[in-house]
Amino acid sequence: MEIEVSQSKLAKALNNVSRIATGKVTLPVLNNVLIRVEKNKVSLVTTNLDMAIVDFLPVSDSKDGVITVPAKLLAEFISNLPRNEKIKITVKDYKITVTAGKYSSSINGTSADDFPELPEINEKNAVIFKMGIDEFKNGINQVAIASSSDLTRPALTGVYFNTYDKTLAIAATDGYRLAEKKLVKNVQSDISVIVPTSSLQEVLRSIDDSMEEIEISFNDDLVRFRLGEVEIISKLIDASYPDYKRLIPKDNNIKLDVDREELIRVTKLAALFARRSASGSIVCEAKKPDVFSVRSVASELGENDSTIETKVEEEGKISLNSRFLSDALNVLDAKTITLEFANSVSPIVLKNKNSDDYTHIIMPLNS
Amino acid sequence: MEIEVSQSKLAKALNNVSRIATGKVTLPVLNNVLIRVEKNKVSLVTTNLDMAIVDFLPVSDSKDGVITVPAKLLAEFISNLPRNEKIKITVKDYKITVTAGKYSSSINGTSADDFPELPEINEKNAVIFKMGIDEFKNGINQVAIASSSDLTRPALTGVYFNTYDKTLAIAATDGYRLAEKKLVKNVQSDISVIVPTSSLQEVLRSIDDSMEEIEISFNDDLVRFRLGEVEIISKLIDASYPDYKRLIPKDNNIKLDVDREELIRVTKLAALFARRSASGSIVCEAKKPDVFSVRSVASELGENDSTIETKVEEEGKISLNSRFLSDALNVLDAKTITLEFANSVSPIVLKNKNSDDYTHIIMPLNS
Repeated sequence: MEIEVSQSKLAKALNNVSRIATGKVTLPVLNNVLIRVEKNKVSLVTTNLDMAIVDFLPVSDSKDGVITVPAKLLAEFISNLPRNEKIKITVKDYKITVTAGKYSSSINGTSADDFPELPEINEKNAVIFKMGIDEFKNGINQVAIASSSDLTRPALTGVYFNTYDKTLAIAATDGYRLAEKKLVKNVQSDISVIVPTSSLQEVLRSIDDSMEEIEISFNDDLVRFRLGEVEIISKLIDASYPDYKRLIPKDNNIKLDVDREELIRVTKLAALFARRSASGSIVCEAKKPDVFSVRSVASELGENDSTIETKVEEEGKISLNSRFLSDALNVLDAKTITLEFANSVSPIVLKNKNSDDYTHIIMPLNS
Repeated sequence: MEIEVSQSKLAKALNNVSRIATGKVTLPVLNNVLIRVEKNKVSLVTTNLDMAIVDFLPVSDSKDGVITVPAKLLAEFISNLPRNEKIKITVKDYKITVTAGKYSSSINGTSADDFPELPEINEKNAVIFKMGIDEFKNGINQVAIASSSDLTRPALTGVYFNTYDKTLAIAATDGYRLAEKKLVKNVQSDISVIVPTSSLQEVLRSIDDSMEEIEISFNDDLVRFRLGEVEIISKLIDASYPDYKRLIPKDNNIKLDVDREELIRVTKLAALFARRSASGSIVCEAKKPDVFSVRSVASELGENDSTIETKVEEEGKISLNSRFLSDALNVLDAKTITLEFANSVSPIVLKNKNSDDYTHIIMPLNS
């Protein structure tokens, strides 16, 4: 095996794939990156058994072959070489030799036979969606925050991709809050699957500025994300997702338009007291005439009270977890947002003003 | 007590002093900042018993008084208020009320009587040095890195301020490496004291761009750093410092000039293998004709070899801890540095080329 390639291309690809190469002690080969050269095309592959990242790398000169070597060591070595240095990699007796000008190192590898076989998408009966990379990134960021890390409820540790009304929607909930984003409209195919949030985070980390579109293919128990020269293949979560749509309240009589930046500030101030109290709660109240107030009390320490001017037609009060409110405000993106709630026991709904594309709901705390 | 002050000034001062207010459970008042108002001058004080930070704050309007309140809570609350908002603070019954426009909070405080009394410098017999803030900052950064965190040898957890040849020098050593900087020349006073490295780090953190000069006053068992509106008072370490000057080797027959950036890169590459090996060592070797090579071996993983071209008149080899070499290279600051060593068992000396102001020595490892 032999490769000649520029430092910058190789460093970028290795840094991307090596992230998930955190080998389990029981299977040390998962620390390694598989390097395969076929007809001047190099593929770099890592896997943690739940998912795999493949980075394709066009090279100027090469001889076919395949080997695996410790991914992080190779990635760090290549990253620290001078930018734009020409790098030459040769392999002999499972030992890889990297030379670049006055620098050289040899790293012991292992046979590719030890590397776990990669799952493959069956192209024929795959359901495929395409979308702009920015819409995808924004959507996942807005939704994934509401997913759970509680491994005893596997369905909630993922993001639910589902179609209805010719729309591809993504949703996540941890039981205390729920977020839904309408991702692509006028879709022709149907889907209803749960993608692990951890895999989606790796997809987000693989995105760079040069990428414009993402292709997502679902097939039986697998999903493949294809973006630029990178492919990420992940297992789906085998569980049924709760019927989240019925959790979104429809008849909220209290509706307020609030400046988002202002509410972020007020929530931060209230959170300083709330997170030092037992309940962690802040009290939001719509009061006539035209005041939205946010209060928090930490009995031993003190208390806090801020107000925002806004049109109030119905009065009402709700207690919320301050961190959940902060999280929601940080992923909403309009200048003005709309808060809707009915009373202190049913959930509050947050949306960008004049838009139904993104819905975030938070369960109230007992006040 | 009453204060009117701009958000930006108060936030800056509170953020500075609240850093060390990490109260021990046995003395919760150390979580607090002491606020004292006297004739339109506010002083904010925190202490951890080993040191105190005092920040003086000119205010537009005030009524005299004194109280202590939780430092981090107040600092975070003020920091999150809009910049340049006018802030009004009033105190009644040990409760402090902060109002700024539509925001208000009240925080429970305690009597200033509970606050530990601050040590004070006796101005009369103090030994005083003044220097530019950049020279001070640079000098401490270059030296403190060699100090120890081993509390069983208290002297080595500090930086030694000592005068000789009419020069104020600072030095630190952890027994494996040693750094000395000549800080001020042509001084008239004599001093020989050890300042805790932790206190010096707080001084560095208190420096901002507006400061030009620092005044350091030593007196019995105390040191005071005065910079702008900030004063930091620290206990000295009561121990005798080793005679470090005799540790600096004088007759090194191997002398090499090396490009610093190049050696940083080569050391990083070698460290990747060294830190995965048992010894953590890298081998530096001067070889005729005109090659300085850096090698490292991690037997199971692989090995690394880099070379730098430089004039070699005497051959020799030395094994070094890669982290210590990296640390030294990062605080040297000339384009070209000089390495001096004699053999593989005596220390290596690193200096900026053509300068004796800063000396860094590293003990060799057994190779």
